[in-house]
Amino acid sequence: MNSIKIFSPATVANVSCGYDAMGFSMEALGDEMIFTKTKEKSVIISKIEGADLPFEANKNVVGVVAQHMLNDSKADFGLDIQIFKKFKPGSGLGSSAASASGTAFAINTLLNGKYSNLELTKFAMQGEVTACGSAIADNVAAAIYGGFILVRSYEPLDIIGIPTPSKLVATVIHPQIEIKTEAARKVVPQNIPVKTAISQWANVGGLVSGLYAEDFDLIGRSLVDLVAEPNRKKLIPYFDEVKEAAISNGALGAGISGSGPSIFALSKGKQTANKVAEAMNTVYKNSGIDYSIYVSNISKAGARII
Amino acid sequence: MNSIKIFSPATVANVSCGYDAMGFSMEALGDEMIFTKTKEKSVIISKIEGADLPFEANKNVVGVVAQHMLNDSKADFGLDIQIFKKFKPGSGLGSSAASASGTAFAINTLLNGKYSNLELTKFAMQGEVTACGSAIADNVAAAIYGGFILVRSYEPLDIIGIPTPSKLVATVIHPQIEIKTEAARKVVPQNIPVKTAISQWANVGGLVSGLYAEDFDLIGRSLVDLVAEPNRKKLIPYFDEVKEAAISNGALGAGISGSGPSIFALSKGKQTANKVAEAMNTVYKNSGIDYSIYVSNISKAGARII
Repeated sequence: MNSIKIFSPATVANVSCGYDAMGFSMEALGDEMIFTKTKEKSVIISKIEGADLPFEANKNVVGVVAQHMLNDSKADFGLDIQIFKKFKPGSGLGSSAASASGTAFAINTLLNGKYSNLELTKFAMQGEVTACGSAIADNVAAAIYGGFILVRSYEPLDIIGIPTPSKLVATVIHPQIEIKTEAARKVVPQNIPVKTAISQWANVGGLVSGLYAEDFDLIGRSLVDLVAEPNRKKLIPYFDEVKEAAISNGALGAGISGSGPSIFALSKGKQTANKVAEAMNTVYKNSGIDYSIYVSNISKAGARII
Repeated sequence: MNSIKIFSPATVANVSCGYDAMGFSMEALGDEMIFTKTKEKSVIISKIEGADLPFEANKNVVGVVAQHMLNDSKADFGLDIQIFKKFKPGSGLGSSAASASGTAFAINTLLNGKYSNLELTKFAMQGEVTACGSAIADNVAAAIYGGFILVRSYEPLDIIGIPTPSKLVATVIHPQIEIKTEAARKVVPQNIPVKTAISQWANVGGLVSGLYAEDFDLIGRSLVDLVAEPNRKKLIPYFDEVKEAAISNGALGAGISGSGPSIFALSKGKQTANKVAEAMNTVYKNSGIDYSIYVSNISKAGARII
């Protein structure tokens, strides 16, 4: 195989109660990339569409991950890479993670599957360091494993794939305002009451249980975030209104996607998810803020060849 | 039915990462009680064997729960109750919870199953108020539902039954020293770093996932408590030695049962669980402290007629 075209999904990290520990991947939203082997053992980014990102390989998430993998595998080839961003950076939907994970997946395919998903996650995390300064795993793991994932531990890295009910559908609104991940992190308190923490981990247990048991009511009851959401929602215009509109139109629950500004809702079935999308649209249409709304099944596959 | 004899299990609450939110029930250890209908509409405790507990109904967990249920159901009968305690109060194995849950289960049977498990848990929680001053749900819910349970929420009360792999076996050592629940609560900090909390809920997600998937390694990796254990273990002689001995003899993990002093370990299979019991015995045999060791499957049934 000399050339490969791949799709790498947008991802929703945190998922309310699962702050810094859970994530899931979108099936119908993600980036596309073309990787072509070259004789020259270098990484060249020859095309970037859809976003204003650096072409210099060592400054671009894609280039950084690619170079790490070519070095580690002692590959006898270089790469020409074309990037087609299909959703905007800074959305809270794992834009850099899609780039990093897609790169790891694509190069692994060109290397005939040399690496495990856990190893690919570690390579992709090096891209996250370039993008946001820290080696966050939740978005990249969701993009590589597909479906719902749990980052059980960082040291050692331990990623658990959680089964995802096929009827679970995500609706996401991306208000096109900028929230820096750094700023979103700062508003979350360093210390929390142990009682709050207990409620949060009880809900994580409920969410994981609901996903296994396909208990949609339980999934909904567990989508509660007492730690990040109460502080971060102030950074997102109309957060309460969007959440309320989603739930009153049938969503199981809703919350902030990653560090925002995107807001996700989960619903049972596409019909409800579309109704939720309409309700979100109604909240935002006269806001004067640009926004996009997406409805998507939750991808079971993660990054894939197209 | 005029008279009923029941078994109500000992229970392990918290289960490491699941502090104040999880619990499981023992199959081979628990109290027995006999409930006999009387014409006189009063609650009389006519026999207590195995523990020094009050006979006055309004001071005994059993009497308190019984009176609440007879009042609520407007029962046309009273009760004569005989209590046979098979394990000691103050063990951290849910002694009062076994009494309270067994009572709720037995009276519900005499009432032809009028109440749901959730309602029985609420009745039994009133016994916990009498026993320890607060309406804790984890032990009583485990004793009523059987197997592993999650207390997802207190308001409203939401109990989730988690499937339990049949090969999962508990080994418990009860060093017969006194630790007051109140004292054990005080050593747990009121506030914890959010990073610690994130690790804890990631492990709760891992434990629930491991139980559903029958992934014993994952269950073991998830049995980590960063919140209560580091503080409480100082109250339990040889805690570190017992835990280390359990794990080095094949246990998946180990931790404090409830607020202690009992220490539990979980193993895959009875053979390993017995080996773990021997290892615990080796640690304690020259300690000068009285102790009991139990090996038990995890009950799937909870309180039951015998």
